[in-house]
Amino acid sequence: MRPKLNLITLGVKDFERSLQFYRDGLGWPLSSASQGDVAFFPLGGVVLALYPRDKLAEDAQVSPAGSGFSGITLAYNTKSQAEVDEVLQTVENLGATIIKRAQPVFWGGYNGYFADPDGHLWEVAWNPFFGFDEADNLILP
Amino acid sequence: MRPKLNLITLGVKDFERSLQFYRDGLGWPLSSASQGDVAFFPLGGVVLALYPRDKLAEDAQVSPAGSGFSGITLAYNTKSQAEVDEVLQTVENLGATIIKRAQPVFWGGYNGYFADPDGHLWEVAWNPFFGFDEADNLILP
Repeated sequence: MRPKLNLITLGVKDFERSLQFYRDGLGWPLSSASQGDVAFFPLGGVVLALYPRDKLAEDAQVSPAGSGFSGITLAYNTKSQAEVDEVLQTVENLGATIIKRAQPVFWGGYNGYFADPDGHLWEVAWNPFFGFDEADNLILP
Repeated sequence: MRPKLNLITLGVKDFERSLQFYRDGLGWPLSSASQGDVAFFPLGGVVLALYPRDKLAEDAQVSPAGSGFSGITLAYNTKSQAEVDEVLQTVENLGATIIKRAQPVFWGGYNGYFADPDGHLWEVAWNPFFGFDEADNLILP
């Protein structure tokens, strides 16, 4: 099994609402491979997919019931501390819930969190120890 | 906000157990930026991180309580149908729970699911309509 994670699917309750947030709000480019109630956003390395939560559970053959902390967070890394503030302001303007206001973190960075329309948690983080390659992917030693 | 997802963090209950699964079991390369109870696996585009679940909730300033379906699935895309079977066999041998045995899916592919030591759901999927670039990332139109 090669070291790879190709795609992340977020289960959504209201597909149109989520599409509006990611495609129209954030302006992320939607792949033409999207169809019906599945949306694909190629993010230069990993693909983010949106799919109805019930159908996602059905595909995995698990119960759709679940509540509270999902135990997973997604992170958008910024290139400056100021960009963290800017991004959180942008998503707040789009109606996202700010879960944690931007603030310094003990490890030397600066982060905040927002919840997307389904409560999926996004960390917006500036890590002064991380760099980016030409595709904006993180460079880690 | 550029279209980007840099890092995914899986909250884990037993850090050593998860490290054993991903690093020793799957053989995924651990970044030397890992330290203490945070592990980083650069997966050629996105970084997978492991971090204690309680601390992850604390970082996001949310309650760590949560149960049932997380509403998120991660996907490893294979290059053949046979590779789906092989990967599921590999992770089953490592002690992962097979949630859905590999089978044809209505959209024309073939998939199965396993749960990692913390129950995080991984889809292992062969999609005959998707291709890969030289970095093994999915190519979507």
